Amino acid sequence: MKLLEDIIRDEGRVYPGNVLKVDSFLNHQIDVSLMDKLAEEFYEQFKGSGITKILTIESSGIAIACSVGRLLDVPVVFAKKSQSLNLGNDVYVTRVSSYTQGKEYDVTVSTRYLDNTDYVLLIDDFLAIGNAMKGLIEICDQAKASIAGIGICIEKGFQSGGSDLRKMGYDVMSLAIVDSMSEDGTITFRE
Amino acid sequence: MKLLEDIIRDEGRVYPGNVLKVDSFLNHQIDVSLMDKLAEEFYEQFKGSGITKILTIESSGIAIACSVGRLLDVPVVFAKKSQSLNLGNDVYVTRVSSYTQGKEYDVTVSTRYLDNTDYVLLIDDFLAIGNAMKGLIEICDQAKASIAGIGICIEKGFQSGGSDLRKMGYDVMSLAIVDSMSEDGTITFRE
Repeated sequence: MKLLEDIIRDEGRVYPGNVLKVDSFLNHQIDVSLMDKLAEEFYEQFKGSGITKILTIESSGIAIACSVGRLLDVPVVFAKKSQSLNLGNDVYVTRVSSYTQGKEYDVTVSTRYLDNTDYVLLIDDFLAIGNAMKGLIEICDQAKASIAGIGICIEKGFQSGGSDLRKMGYDVMSLAIVDSMSEDGTITFRE
Repeated sequence: MKLLEDIIRDEGRVYPGNVLKVDSFLNHQIDVSLMDKLAEEFYEQFKGSGITKILTIESSGIAIACSVGRLLDVPVVFAKKSQSLNLGNDVYVTRVSSYTQGKEYDVTVSTRYLDNTDYVLLIDDFLAIGNAMKGLIEICDQAKASIAGIGICIEKGFQSGGSDLRKMGYDVMSLAIVDSMSEDGTITFRE
């Protein structure tokens, strides 16, 4: 998506360790109007396919997930990253290792909000190694929910998550795929 | 707001320790259409006042904050609850004690996204003791940003956060104020 690639080129900052910071519009400060434009791309791809629910993971997936949920007119569920005292015990749970945060955490979804009648669109802001997304897939498997597809704003194409998920047979739609980036700010996108 | 009170009565669940769970529509599963209706109330109150930014805190404030940001046509910034390796060092930071999670955490906002030119509407899903909201106020103070007001979806009126903030002089708009609740499911709202 050219609009997103242009914004990443303009506002993205590359740091050592393959860190791409896009926190001016995506995952700290949020450009809501841009989220709505990105959401339209997912909507065009997945509308009419019978999706019943959007599943994302806190925190930075929530904004784009809500924009997509609005267009598809379905609820958004966000998986929680640690057991809150308020969450209750009836949860699907899986363990995820975070690349950016350098730690492991539990991902939970209440059994109330996902079950075998659901046809789920998984949404997240970023896809790198794909551990968070694989965690969401595991949650869907536990719920016996079906997965319609996976919508990602920015995929790091030089890391394994996207190819892993495509090999697993999932319909992965990434709006921008970064094939390479360097600390001088050069970012190359997949055609 | 009668619509919200009705939904809280229908779907809210009261647990020991003054816990009100509204995770079917507000803070785990999200009813995006409802968020947009709640946002309209904040918009009517705060439109035309020159707000430049919405500030909320991850995670459950993000959905309602984005709905308000869309209507006011301003960016949303969400404060982060722990230091991410991706956040950088140029941050405002304050320490917050969480009532529901029973622990303390750091709240951070990048200095890039909040400064003394900002006129900020603070938004959150819940207000109880008010520690998270007081943390956001402290962040605004550090940034020398001005505060236009505070928009809350559900205030627990029997806890001190709302009255504390009003005594501090802030314009606190809560869409539903729970004055009492009991484990048999009875919930009384402030007139």
